[in-house]
Amino acid sequence: MAARRGTFVALEGIDGSGKSGAARHLAAHLAARGVPVVQTREPGGTPEGEVLRGLLLSGAEEGWDPLSELLLMTAARIRHVQGVILPALEAGKTVLCDRYVGSTIAYQGAGRGIDEAFIRQLHAQTVGDVWPDLTLVLDVDAATGLARSRGRLAESAVDEGRFEALDLDFHERIRASYLDQAARDPARHFVLAAAAPAEQVWEAAVEALERHAVA
Amino acid sequence: MAARRGTFVALEGIDGSGKSGAARHLAAHLAARGVPVVQTREPGGTPEGEVLRGLLLSGAEEGWDPLSELLLMTAARIRHVQGVILPALEAGKTVLCDRYVGSTIAYQGAGRGIDEAFIRQLHAQTVGDVWPDLTLVLDVDAATGLARSRGRLAESAVDEGRFEALDLDFHERIRASYLDQAARDPARHFVLAAAAPAEQVWEAAVEALERHAVA
Repeated sequence: MAARRGTFVALEGIDGSGKSGAARHLAAHLAARGVPVVQTREPGGTPEGEVLRGLLLSGAEEGWDPLSELLLMTAARIRHVQGVILPALEAGKTVLCDRYVGSTIAYQGAGRGIDEAFIRQLHAQTVGDVWPDLTLVLDVDAATGLARSRGRLAESAVDEGRFEALDLDFHERIRASYLDQAARDPARHFVLAAAAPAEQVWEAAVEALERHAVA
Repeated sequence: MAARRGTFVALEGIDGSGKSGAARHLAAHLAARGVPVVQTREPGGTPEGEVLRGLLLSGAEEGWDPLSELLLMTAARIRHVQGVILPALEAGKTVLCDRYVGSTIAYQGAGRGIDEAFIRQLHAQTVGDVWPDLTLVLDVDAATGLARSRGRLAESAVDEGRFEALDLDFHERIRASYLDQAARDPARHFVLAAAAPAEQVWEAAVEALERHAVA
């Protein structure tokens, strides 16, 4: 495998924490400075992954058990890493990824109850040692995030409400998992207070990238 | 978990080996004797699994890498075991399953090159210790099987030709894997010479079930 030259940045956070807006802002900021950037997302990011995204995020809550969810998420990630993320990094680009394995640890682990060690083992055995250089955790309380997210879903034609349908307690576990992941690996995580006005969050995100010599 | 009372029978073999016909014959034979029977198949067997079957068996050969294929097959199997196979066995029914984990070992292992130990480990960690009581291996050389299978596909409206598109060498590896699995666990496998006329194969299949006290 060629040496990785670009920087891999993941954005993580509960639904409604403002990840997509922050990713768009960061992408524009980097592009304006002449930094080649690839903006992508999970689950999805490839034609095959987007099909799995549709299966996973739409439809009935009971449709997939936690382990199947984990395997589908991981299958989509293998395609995404091999087909999009690694080629971009090897070409020296900065990758901005809206959700990555941190979300799997949070949702399928803390949320659904799968042992985190198994999730990490499966990642190592299938995706390999591909972890973000920097993860931005957009931290907001579950009630605020869900209110934002449900408001957006109500206006959207896309049926991706499967996880939003789960209760506040589920989303608080997700939030706690992100903070826990950041606390255990502080050198590669940066937590942003995402209840603040969007411009303020975006500015802090740019600062975090600069501190990691990305921007 | 309740004690399993029914008998779990898997039918394995390369494409065109006559699994479906044998399964139908066995189901009719058992039903005629008053044995409650559930006939099912993999990948598939549940609404979710059939969606994954469509993803896996149709379309371009390059669409899924081997590990993604393995994870999708396993995700479908989790649903199938939990939702169909175990409930049927617990209700005392005989389950006739057209392909099971033996096909994953053959196709994704011997065919695609994934380490069999990893396939077995993933099975144990997600599906659990659910293996057929009896596996009927319908053994036919790859050229004969492929000729039958391609003839059938040409007449069918269903696009499930992804694996048939692979070469003879691939299918010979699959066949060898089934024979190897049978050789390593002879008490739970029965190899049928499937190039024989169908009625003769079916008769031998019934005998194998009788020997295992199923029929």
